Amino acid sequence: MRQFIVLGHDAPTTADFSLENLSGAGRLDVLCRCVGAAVFLSHGIREAVRVHLVLDDAYTLRFDSDTLRRLYPDERTIAARIRDALDQREDAIGHQPAEVSPGMELYRFGFESTLDAVADDGTVVQLHAEGTPLPEASTPSDPVFVLSDHEDFTAREAELLTGRADQRLRVGPETLHADQTITVAHNWLDTAGYSEY
Amino acid sequence: MRQFIVLGHDAPTTADFSLENLSGAGRLDVLCRCVGAAVFLSHGIREAVRVHLVLDDAYTLRFDSDTLRRLYPDERTIAARIRDALDQREDAIGHQPAEVSPGMELYRFGFESTLDAVADDGTVVQLHAEGTPLPEASTPSDPVFVLSDHEDFTAREAELLTGRADQRLRVGPETLHADQTITVAHNWLDTAGYSEY
Repeated sequence: MRQFIVLGHDAPTTADFSLENLSGAGRLDVLCRCVGAAVFLSHGIREAVRVHLVLDDAYTLRFDSDTLRRLYPDERTIAARIRDALDQREDAIGHQPAEVSPGMELYRFGFESTLDAVADDGTVVQLHAEGTPLPEASTPSDPVFVLSDHEDFTAREAELLTGRADQRLRVGPETLHADQTITVAHNWLDTAGYSEY
Repeated sequence: MRQFIVLGHDAPTTADFSLENLSGAGRLDVLCRCVGAAVFLSHGIREAVRVHLVLDDAYTLRFDSDTLRRLYPDERTIAARIRDALDQREDAIGHQPAEVSPGMELYRFGFESTLDAVADDGTVVQLHAEGTPLPEASTPSDPVFVLSDHEDFTAREAELLTGRADQRLRVGPETLHADQTITVAHNWLDTAGYSEY
């Protein structure tokens, strides 16, 4: 399995945002592109991928590629599904998620609990300017990539991640958008012949 | 310079489409993501990139990263700029483009003329399942990548491209969306230390 945790620092936590202005809704456009980059291939959905969108450190929306239905790669469609999920946020209680639609679950917790929940099941990867360049790195088993939206990690997030990270990787000399980084990570694993199923 | 020609087979050629349904407008969402993947870095615009969106083989909209202004990476903003450009399509006459806004020019010609216009200035790259895998290939100078939207190349397009191609490359074992392919191509060139300026 490949997993991606994406931190949406200003992301909405209620359903009252407009689909006509996603960049104005805490840069939800970036988060939607991250979901698309993580789960879609040209004519299908990748197997064994999970995306965890952390919304303002209050909720985490999990997408499981193996059970997702009726999702399409355009930003607006993905944003509409996120809005539908947030509409059911009252059903997320403690560690019981709201099952908002096939392959999507909304949890009432933020980054630390999300990281705790997945860290033992895989290799937590920290993307870092001083990490090993991808072409020189060994491919991790069951990687968990942790990415931030348009903002940097906060000091607290960076500290948590450093404490949990099993591997530090460098994606490239240029600083990419989170969704672009996901695409590069997938291609790196694809090309290295990584097979998780 | 890095150039990307993207063929939008069903793309609109008039401005009467809705920004609320980009995937229904000839999969304009894919083309918008291609523009975003080509020109944007996390906090800025790449230097020396040109994107040529071929719209239904009737018009070609050229984006020049060095002179682009007020463009943002969300699909809706890019689509709005494409719509503004098509609103001025009557000003594109012969090989004289309509200069629709800084860094954007609309030409009244399709794929063959676009390929003719750029082929002599760079290395035309054909992406092909039997091409050389990226990690094993030498990096082309002034590459011109030619990509198709959600549909395959037509027989005529494939023939034109094969006749013009200087290099055949394979992006990966998985078939990616055109925008994902652009992201991978950029990263490959970035990582190989390619410098064009």
